Amino acid sequence: MVLLRESVGQALRRTRTEQSRTLRDVARDARVSLGYLSEVERGQKEASSELLNSICEALGLTLGSLMNEVTLEITSAETAKLVVVDAA
Amino acid sequence: MVLLRESVGQALRRTRTEQSRTLRDVARDARVSLGYLSEVERGQKEASSELLNSICEALGLTLGSLMNEVTLEITSAETAKLVVVDAA
Repeated sequence: MVLLRESVGQALRRTRTEQSRTLRDVARDARVSLGYLSEVERGQKEASSELLNSICEALGLTLGSLMNEVTLEITSAETAKLVVVDAA
Repeated sequence: MVLLRESVGQALRRTRTEQSRTLRDVARDARVSLGYLSEVERGQKEASSELLNSICEALGLTLGSLMNEVTLEITSAETAKLVVVDAA
């Protein structure tokens, strides 16, 4: 099962590492705790919509561009699962 | 500020009403409480990723197709805000 919070976490982590930034740096800019950001990135916690916006802002992303990336990832994972089911 | 939970709620409600289904019907199929579904649709509660998948399944939607609709809505709202800022 594809989980939204996991795709969101992966996209946030990918963006942060592409910017060569640390969890501490982004958490400070987003005014969230380092532990919170880390759990969100690992897909262990659902980010609240307000804090998701703060994290996007800290990364210089719009919510729309993040969700675009998330949607592509979810759609691709769902398609991969359909292929596996077809082949079974 | 565009909030993810509000866009998700609007897309869920729009899909349900297009199918002429009641909150009670979809909540039962998704195995969530009617109050929970109602709060999610009104953007008052963040749906957990697991329950969001159950609601999508009850509506015959993939998570990817829901998120595609949500992303279009968020992007359009963000663009509208940019236009307002430019005009100011």
